[in-house]
Amino acid sequence: MSDISELIQFIKKEFDQSLHSFPLPNHPKYLYEPIRYALKGKGKRFRPILVHLSGRAFKTDPDDMMKISLAVELLHCFTLIHDDIMDSDDLRRNMPTLHKRYDISSAILAGDGIFTISQLVLNSIGNKPEIFLQLYNETVLEICEGQALDKDFENKEDISLEQYIEMVEKKTGALLGSCCYLPAVLSGKPNNFINELKKIGKQLGIAFQIQDDLFEIFGDERNMGKSLGSDIFSNKKTAIAIEAKNSFPSEWKTIVEQFDGKSLVNVRNFLSENKIRDKVEALADDSFKFAYNSLSDLGFDKKSELYRFFKIIQGRHA
Amino acid sequence: MSDISELIQFIKKEFDQSLHSFPLPNHPKYLYEPIRYALKGKGKRFRPILVHLSGRAFKTDPDDMMKISLAVELLHCFTLIHDDIMDSDDLRRNMPTLHKRYDISSAILAGDGIFTISQLVLNSIGNKPEIFLQLYNETVLEICEGQALDKDFENKEDISLEQYIEMVEKKTGALLGSCCYLPAVLSGKPNNFINELKKIGKQLGIAFQIQDDLFEIFGDERNMGKSLGSDIFSNKKTAIAIEAKNSFPSEWKTIVEQFDGKSLVNVRNFLSENKIRDKVEALADDSFKFAYNSLSDLGFDKKSELYRFFKIIQGRHA
Repeated sequence: MSDISELIQFIKKEFDQSLHSFPLPNHPKYLYEPIRYALKGKGKRFRPILVHLSGRAFKTDPDDMMKISLAVELLHCFTLIHDDIMDSDDLRRNMPTLHKRYDISSAILAGDGIFTISQLVLNSIGNKPEIFLQLYNETVLEICEGQALDKDFENKEDISLEQYIEMVEKKTGALLGSCCYLPAVLSGKPNNFINELKKIGKQLGIAFQIQDDLFEIFGDERNMGKSLGSDIFSNKKTAIAIEAKNSFPSEWKTIVEQFDGKSLVNVRNFLSENKIRDKVEALADDSFKFAYNSLSDLGFDKKSELYRFFKIIQGRHA
Repeated sequence: MSDISELIQFIKKEFDQSLHSFPLPNHPKYLYEPIRYALKGKGKRFRPILVHLSGRAFKTDPDDMMKISLAVELLHCFTLIHDDIMDSDDLRRNMPTLHKRYDISSAILAGDGIFTISQLVLNSIGNKPEIFLQLYNETVLEICEGQALDKDFENKEDISLEQYIEMVEKKTGALLGSCCYLPAVLSGKPNNFINELKKIGKQLGIAFQIQDDLFEIFGDERNMGKSLGSDIFSNKKTAIAIEAKNSFPSEWKTIVEQFDGKSLVNVRNFLSENKIRDKVEALADDSFKFAYNSLSDLGFDKKSELYRFFKIIQGRHA
């Protein structure tokens, strides 16, 4: 797999260079200083990489690929900034979140600005089909819906796995879907093909989010760039919490109540010993499997870059 | 002027009907209930009216005019929601602000959603020049810059009238400008013509904002739909505050310090007796004059609907 790893490193490097040299005004400082701060963070760039690998498959113009990848990463960045305010999160990518470093007003405004810049980047792509921006903005609205469901679930006790899946499909899957299909739209692929890519991206998103839920408990704090266990503390309805509650209602209640927000030893032991971890990992694998099968239906074989990147995501650790 | 008043009433009625019957999903409630609440407010609809009158002059397709007017009003609504959070305002259009009625998270998200819907409405216009959405999003970024300047000024003491003008030109003028020129862009008007309309809109915006600053002190609380004097209380750098401070530094300082957030009698008397009110009104009139002259240069005579609507705005009371 060394050639695909090299390709990914290359894309990441090129992307980071584009993002960090992205022309931004200095004035007014109140807007652009927080925006610069937000764009300084070192992300894993899964979304831009996905755009480039998809674009390579569809022979999308390289400049256009870079623009799409910048737009989706900016969009992602905007949603993280606003989500961090809503979730009162203090740390993101090993740095204080924007509203912690500045204040809530600056963070709301920086998010709005970054979102607008993302639109401007896409607007600057020439000769795009009219459906292109429509699909992009439909994705944004889905992300808003996903975040709304996530917030709403915090105040509810009985959330089913189906409801969770709907939420992550929108909150995480919609954007990964658009990473896969936006280059294909530019390259003139037909609607049914686009829809298949959308579904593949959504399944990837579901798997990706379930993995993230697991990392939030079983991950390495330094690699994650934030403190762990906050999902349990804030009563987030993650796949693992739903599964634990469904299988062991009273035991899980006790575990959650006893969690002090710091030591995850008891939580981890409970979830591992009772095979809840295995069950949730299998859930993620199911979504990966669906994605692989659909990729193969579209003609992407096991040697294709997109397929191999999905495999890398499946095997990631945190 | 009765025919123009009738026309404006007609446009307002048609617009309100379109806005209030705008198709919105019900699910998730966490997102769409606050959005519905935000769109229920009864605005004066200056921006949609401006779009329609401009569109009539350029023979823009009526369906497209309605879409542009919906998009700019939604954009305006989104900025009000986020600004109200940033300014901790409690009342808007005689109703509790969104973050007061719900909470800050819901309000941030509803704003993001409304902004996205505004993009979708514009996206749905067929056969638009590529520059159309670019110009629209440049306007949004200018509005963000204007709000950034406004927030920044709160923590600064010496703001000049030039700095204030730059701020309102962006915060208020940019959107009024786009109301004037977006229909013209759709109708294929050349760039220099568009730029002139942009300047006219900006001058209208400056005048409009100076009027609003005056209303915030001299207006009628019931008509304004909010409590007055909050600009003074929060040390907003309005045209009138800058003018008062420049002309009577120590006296104005005392007036501001003695203001209890309720009774405006002393403030009003001071500003009237010392001709500061007259001076600031003259400032607004200068911008109106510039706008009239430029309109006339573009071929809009005194009988034109756009010219007469500007006159109505100039004569408005609050």
